[in-house]
Amino acid sequence: MKQYFKIDEWKIIEDGFDPKYNEVAESVFSLGNGRMGQRANFEEAYSGKTLQGNYVAGVYYPDKTRVGWWKNGYPEYFAKVLNAANWIGIDVVIDGEQLDIAKCEVISFNRELNMREGYLKRNFTVRTALGKEVQVEAIRFCSMVDDECGAIKYTITPLNLEGKVSLTPYIDGDVVNKDSNYDEKFWDEVSKQTDNDTACVQLRTKKTGFEVATAMKVTVLLDGSPVHFKSEAVLKEKYAAVQITLDAKQGQPISLIKYATNVSSQNYPAEELVSKAHERLNTIASKGFDKMLEEQAAVWAEKWKHNDIVIEGDAAAQQGIRFNIFQLNQTYTGEDDRLNIGPKGFTGEKYGGSTYWDTEAYCVPFYLATAEQKVARNLLLYRYKQLGKAIENAKLLGFKDGAALYPMVTMDGTECHNEWEITFEEIHRNGAIAYAIYDYVRYTGDESYLADYGLEVLIAISRFWAQRVNWSESRERYVMLGVTGPNEYENNVNNNWYTSTIAVWCMKYTLEVIGKVQQADSTKYQALADKIGFNEESESAKFSDIIAKMYFPKDDKLGIFLQQDGYLDKEQILVKDLPATDRPLVQKWSWDRILRSVFIKQADVLQGLYFFEDDYDLETIRRNYDFYEPRTVHESSLSPCVHSILAAKLGDVERAYQFYLRTSRLDIDDYNNDTEDGCHITSMAGTWMSVVQGFGGMRVKDGQLHFNPLLPAEWKALSFQIGFRGALLNIRITKEAVIINATGGQLNILVNNQEVTVEPGTELNIARLK
Amino acid sequence: MKQYFKIDEWKIIEDGFDPKYNEVAESVFSLGNGRMGQRANFEEAYSGKTLQGNYVAGVYYPDKTRVGWWKNGYPEYFAKVLNAANWIGIDVVIDGEQLDIAKCEVISFNRELNMREGYLKRNFTVRTALGKEVQVEAIRFCSMVDDECGAIKYTITPLNLEGKVSLTPYIDGDVVNKDSNYDEKFWDEVSKQTDNDTACVQLRTKKTGFEVATAMKVTVLLDGSPVHFKSEAVLKEKYAAVQITLDAKQGQPISLIKYATNVSSQNYPAEELVSKAHERLNTIASKGFDKMLEEQAAVWAEKWKHNDIVIEGDAAAQQGIRFNIFQLNQTYTGEDDRLNIGPKGFTGEKYGGSTYWDTEAYCVPFYLATAEQKVARNLLLYRYKQLGKAIENAKLLGFKDGAALYPMVTMDGTECHNEWEITFEEIHRNGAIAYAIYDYVRYTGDESYLADYGLEVLIAISRFWAQRVNWSESRERYVMLGVTGPNEYENNVNNNWYTSTIAVWCMKYTLEVIGKVQQADSTKYQALADKIGFNEESESAKFSDIIAKMYFPKDDKLGIFLQQDGYLDKEQILVKDLPATDRPLVQKWSWDRILRSVFIKQADVLQGLYFFEDDYDLETIRRNYDFYEPRTVHESSLSPCVHSILAAKLGDVERAYQFYLRTSRLDIDDYNNDTEDGCHITSMAGTWMSVVQGFGGMRVKDGQLHFNPLLPAEWKALSFQIGFRGALLNIRITKEAVIINATGGQLNILVNNQEVTVEPGTELNIARLK
Repeated sequence: MKQYFKIDEWKIIEDGFDPKYNEVAESVFSLGNGRMGQRANFEEAYSGKTLQGNYVAGVYYPDKTRVGWWKNGYPEYFAKVLNAANWIGIDVVIDGEQLDIAKCEVISFNRELNMREGYLKRNFTVRTALGKEVQVEAIRFCSMVDDECGAIKYTITPLNLEGKVSLTPYIDGDVVNKDSNYDEKFWDEVSKQTDNDTACVQLRTKKTGFEVATAMKVTVLLDGSPVHFKSEAVLKEKYAAVQITLDAKQGQPISLIKYATNVSSQNYPAEELVSKAHERLNTIASKGFDKMLEEQAAVWAEKWKHNDIVIEGDAAAQQGIRFNIFQLNQTYTGEDDRLNIGPKGFTGEKYGGSTYWDTEAYCVPFYLATAEQKVARNLLLYRYKQLGKAIENAKLLGFKDGAALYPMVTMDGTECHNEWEITFEEIHRNGAIAYAIYDYVRYTGDESYLADYGLEVLIAISRFWAQRVNWSESRERYVMLGVTGPNEYENNVNNNWYTSTIAVWCMKYTLEVIGKVQQADSTKYQALADKIGFNEESESAKFSDIIAKMYFPKDDKLGIFLQQDGYLDKEQILVKDLPATDRPLVQKWSWDRILRSVFIKQADVLQGLYFFEDDYDLETIRRNYDFYEPRTVHESSLSPCVHSILAAKLGDVERAYQFYLRTSRLDIDDYNNDTEDGCHITSMAGTWMSVVQGFGGMRVKDGQLHFNPLLPAEWKALSFQIGFRGALLNIRITKEAVIINATGGQLNILVNNQEVTVEPGTELNIARLK
Repeated sequence: MKQYFKIDEWKIIEDGFDPKYNEVAESVFSLGNGRMGQRANFEEAYSGKTLQGNYVAGVYYPDKTRVGWWKNGYPEYFAKVLNAANWIGIDVVIDGEQLDIAKCEVISFNRELNMREGYLKRNFTVRTALGKEVQVEAIRFCSMVDDECGAIKYTITPLNLEGKVSLTPYIDGDVVNKDSNYDEKFWDEVSKQTDNDTACVQLRTKKTGFEVATAMKVTVLLDGSPVHFKSEAVLKEKYAAVQITLDAKQGQPISLIKYATNVSSQNYPAEELVSKAHERLNTIASKGFDKMLEEQAAVWAEKWKHNDIVIEGDAAAQQGIRFNIFQLNQTYTGEDDRLNIGPKGFTGEKYGGSTYWDTEAYCVPFYLATAEQKVARNLLLYRYKQLGKAIENAKLLGFKDGAALYPMVTMDGTECHNEWEITFEEIHRNGAIAYAIYDYVRYTGDESYLADYGLEVLIAISRFWAQRVNWSESRERYVMLGVTGPNEYENNVNNNWYTSTIAVWCMKYTLEVIGKVQQADSTKYQALADKIGFNEESESAKFSDIIAKMYFPKDDKLGIFLQQDGYLDKEQILVKDLPATDRPLVQKWSWDRILRSVFIKQADVLQGLYFFEDDYDLETIRRNYDFYEPRTVHESSLSPCVHSILAAKLGDVERAYQFYLRTSRLDIDDYNNDTEDGCHITSMAGTWMSVVQGFGGMRVKDGQLHFNPLLPAEWKALSFQIGFRGALLNIRITKEAVIINATGGQLNILVNNQEVTVEPGTELNIARLK
C-alpha cells in the first residue's frame, strides 16, 4: 500500500484506479464540514468493493449490544454512528448501459483532495463493456459556509457516441450499517416527494426517533449553459429520484449540478424539516455552485491562516501534517456544543459512539491553539451538559452522592460500550475530562469557566475518585483496585500508576479550584455547593486525606514508577527482541498472551509523565521513558505522538522524528492496514501536538507561552501558527534561528527559557542554541 | 416458591396446578436415561408459559458467538445443547375442541415423579371452555434398558360426554432453542414418513451435520383392550403425525400408548437411521408398555441398591438427597465414553456445552463410589480422547510442544465459551482433570490406566503449566499471572493460590506417575515418551525447578494463604454485614463492584484445602476456613457442598448441616429462583459428597477407605452405600454407633482411624465417639 497516493504539499492525489485500494481511498478522500460528512464513494453506480457512508453529526442509533454473558451494569446499547441517506448518488445510463467503473476499462483516472480549498475532484475516462467512451469530471464538497449543505458538479462528456444519456440523481435512505449487530436497518421512512428538479426523503431512526430530511435540487448544463429539462420521478422505499434523459452529442459536456442538504430534528421541529430543506436548497442554488466553491475556498484560507504547519524540505511530512489538520477541521468546527469528535469522524462507522477521552486528551489542545476559544469551550460544555448522565452512569455501578463517571464511549452522555474491562475499569477517562478543564483555563486564562461550569464537573469527578479508592489495611494507604489504564493490553489491574496519579491530581486541582472560586465569587461558590450538596468540610478533608495517603507503585532499584502492581513479575522482554512475524501483536497473538506479556499498547506511565511533566525531574522522566518505551508496541494510533513529544523533551530529536513519521502519514500510507474502515481522526490531533509541543517545544506555564524548539535534521524549517489570548503567532524554526511574527496583541513569551516580547509587525529573530 | 412440591421420601409431588410454577415443575420433573431426556412438558397442547425441551445426548449446535469486540483466540462458536424433536406430543381434540389445560378449569391435578421406579405420572381432571369434563392419566419414562427409547401411556376418560375424540400423536422437529443467539433454527429436515401406526422424522443439524431419526409407534386401547384403528397422516415441515379419531363414551377410558425412539448418526450410518428407528420401535412395542415399566423399575432398584442414601428423621433432607441421586443417574450412565455431564443435564438448555470442570471435581467421586468402575473410567477417557483438541486449544493461545489446555466448556473437545476472563484464564480446570485421574487411581487401584492413558494427559497438562508460569526476576520465583480462580467474582488476577497449588501438584503427580510407569512397564513408558516427544531429562528438570521455586501468596500475620496477590488490599468486610437487599450480589451489584469487593462466589483457597487436605494441618485449614468462609456468598451451586465437607472436617456439624440443606433442596425449593432454566445437575454430585465425605467422613488413603462419621442433631440416622474394589458397603451412622454391612469381598477399612475388617455377612457395630 505504501505510497499509493502521490505526494503533494496541498493535495492528496490518486493517479490511476486500483479497485483493491478503493475502500482506503474512500476513507482518505472523505469530506466533512462538522455537521455532516461522507466517505468518497462514487456518484455513479459502483459494483466493486465499497463501504458506503454518509453521516449526519449527532444522529446515532442505540444498537442492542452483543455480549457473551450479561452482567449487571452492562450498557444495553452500543450506539452506532449511523449511516444516513446517500445524497451523492447520480445513476448514469448511457444508451441503456449503466455507467459502473467496476465494469469498464479505465483509460484514465485521477482523484484529488484539494486540502487548500476544501473539495474533492475526480476525473476519469472509461470505455464501457459495449464500447462507449466517456469522460467524467466530478467536483464535490460539504460546504463550510452552509453547513447543512453540499454540492456536486458532475460533468460527463461522450467521447465516441451520440445517443441518450440518462442521469438519475437520487436521495437513497435505504442504507445499512455494515456493523449492525443484528443485520437490522436503522431508519424508517417518514415521507418522500419529488418535483421536476427536486427530491426529498424524510427518515426517522428507530428507537431514538431522530428525523432527518435529505433533499436535493438539480440543474443541468449543456456546454456549460443551463438548460430546461423535463424529468421523471422515481420513488422507491426510502428513495426519491428524478430521471433526466438528454441527447448526448460527442464532445459535448453535460453537467448536472446537485445541491443537497441534510436538516435534522435536532435543530428544527420534525414537521418543518421538508420546508427547511427546500429553503436551504433554494439558498444555495440561487448562490450557485461556483460561488459556493469560492466561499468554501475562502473559509479554508482563513482556517489555514490559523492552522497551517509548514515543513520545508520534506514534502511527505508536509502532506501528512496538512492532511491531519484538514481532517480535524472537517470533523469538528466547534459551532455546536452538542457535537463531538468521533475517532473516525465522518470517514467510517467503526467504533460506536462519537466521544472518547481522545477528545480531551488529544483534541482540546489542537483546537485551543488553532481555533476560536469557543471551540474548545464547546467541547468542555459538551461534558458539562452530560454531567447528569455521568452521575447516573456512576450510580448504575454502585457509586452515590453525586459521584460522576463519564462514559468511555458515548453519543448523549450514556455509556454505550460494553466490555466490562473497559466500561467499568478504564476510568482514567474521568481524569482526562478534568485535565481538559485545567488545560483550557491554563491556555485561555478564562477562570470564569471554573465558577460557571468547571468546578461542578471537578467535584463530581473527585467524588468518584474518593469512592473508587479504598483504604488498604495491609498497606495503610489508599489503593485503586480493578482498573484498566491507557494501556489496554492490561485489564483489571491494581494500582495503575497513571490512573492513581491523575485521580490524585483531580482531587488536588479540585481543592485548588474550590479555593479560587470561593475567592473570586463566594456567592457563586455557595450556590454551587448548595445545588450539589457539597459538604466542603468533610469532602475536602476526604480528598486531602486521599491525596496525602495514596499508594503509588514504584521500583526504587530501577528508579521507575510501576505501571501497576506486579508489573515486574512479568517476563521482561523487549519489543526489539520480538520477531517481526509476531507484529502487530493484536493480530498475531492471543488476547491471553498479550495480557500476560510485558508489552504496552500505548503510553501509560508515560502519559502521566507527559501530563504532569513539571512534577518530575528530567532524569525521572528519562528513566521511565528508557524503561517503558522499549516495551511499547505503539499499537494505538494515540501512542507515537506522546512518545514523540517526550523524546523531544529529552532532547532525542531523531527518535522524536521517527515517532512523528509514524503518526503523521498513518492513514495516507495505511500504516496499520485498517484505513479502509475510516481515518484515525482523533490521533491526528496528537500528530499536531507532536509538531507543536514536540518540535516546537510549546508549553503554557503561568499564563505564558514557552517554546523550546528542536528541528529534525531532515527538515530545512518548520513553521506553525498559534493563537493565544488574542494574538496570532507564526513561529518559524530554522536550523539557525527561531523567527516569530505576530498579529493581534503584544505578548511576552519564553523562547528557550528567555523571556522575549512579541509585538505585531515586528519580526523576532532569535538565534538557535547549538 | 418454597415448598411448592410436597415432601415424600421417594417422590416429588405436585398437587394442584399453578401455571406460574409450570416451568420450574418442567425442570424438576425432567426425565432422562443418559442417552436422551426431556423436560416435563405436557403431552397435550399447552398455551401457557413453558420451556419446551427434548435432548439427545451428544448432539449439539455450534451457534455463532456473540461478543462485544472480537479478540484473537476467541472461540468462534458457543456450542448449544440442542433442543431436539419433540416425541412426547399428543394433540387431543374433543368434539372439535383442543385440550389445553391453560384454557380449562382445572378440577384436580396431580403429578408425581416416582424416583424409586423411574417414571413420571400425571393425573388431572379438567372442564373445557365448552364444558366437557375429562380425566387424564399420563405415564411416561425414558427407558434405562432400551436407552434410545421412551414410552407414554396416555389415558383419557370422558366424564360427561359422548362424541368424537381425536388423538394425534406426533413427532415435531420444528423446534427452537430459546437461547439461540441469532433466532435461528438449528435443524433441517432430511425425511419424514407415516404409516397407519407409525411416524418418523429424520433431521440433520446445520453445520455439525448430526442426523437423528425420531420415530413413534402407537397402539390404542379401549377399556384397557387393544383395538384396531385407522389413522390419517398429518405431514408438515419437520413434522409427522397420525390422527386417530375414536368414538368416546362417557366413563370409558381411551388409552394411547406411544412408543418412541431417537436414533442418531453418532451410532449408525445416517442412511440406516429410519430402519434402525423402526427396529427399536418394534422391539419395545412387542415388549409392551407394562413390561418396559417393570424393567425400568428393576434397573432403578439395582441403582438404588448402590446409590441410595437414607436419612432417618428428616423427610425433606431425605427427599432432597434422593432427588439429587435420581437426577445424576438420569443424566449420565457411563455407557458411552463420548458423553459427559452438562450442568443442566437433560433439564434445560442453559449453559452451552456439556462438559465443565464440574465433571472431574464433583461428579467423578460420585460415580466412583456408586457405579461400576467403567463409569468413572469413561469420564476420564472422554478427556483422554479429547487430548488432541486440548493441545490445539493451547496452541491457539500461543502454547507449544504438546502443552494441553482443556476447554472450559465443550461438546467435542473444542473450547466453546467466549469470555476471555474465563476461557483464557480459568485454567485451574486443567488441574481438576489431572486430579480426577489421581482420584480414580486412588479409589480403584487401577494403575494400568496411568500407563495406558493417564500419563499422556498428565504430561500434556504439566507442559501447559510449565509454559504458563514465568520466572519473576523481581521475586526470584515462578509466578502465574493473569488467571481466574474458581471464585469467578475475581477475574485476571495474579498468583491465585488455588491455581498455583493445583499446577504444582499436577507437576509433582506427573513426576510420580512417570516413575511408577517406568517401573511398571518401561517399554510402554518409552513408547509413550517417543510418541509425544517427551524429553524426560529436560522436561522433568523443568517441572522440578518450578515445583521447588513456585511462588504462593500468603499472609504470615493472619496465617492464611492469599486467594491472590493483593487480596488484602480490598476493603475487608464480611458477608454477615451485607444488607439482605444486596443479595444475591450477582443480581444486585454491578460487575465492577463485585470484582473489586472482597466477596467470594465459591470455594477458592478452600477448594485447594479440600483437594489437598493432607498437605496441611488442621489448624491451617481452620484459619483459612475462618478467614474465607465469612467472605463467601456461595452464589455458585458448587460452593455449599465443599464448605459443608470442610465444616464437618473441622468438627462443626451444625455448620456442615446448614450448608447441606442449602445444597440438597436447591432445585426442589427453587432456592436461587432459576430452576425454571433447568436443574443444577453437576452440583447434585457435590450434595452427595457433602453427605458421604462430610457426614460420613469418607476418604481413601493408601488404598484404604476411611470413615470419620458425624451426625447432624436433626437426624436420627444416616446410611449410604459405597462400592469399593469389589465390595459393596452399607454404612449406617446413628447417634450411638456406626454399623457396617457388606456384600462382595472382604475389606480392611478405618473407622475413626481404627482399622477394622469388614466381611460380607457380618455386621460391624462400632460405638460412636462422644
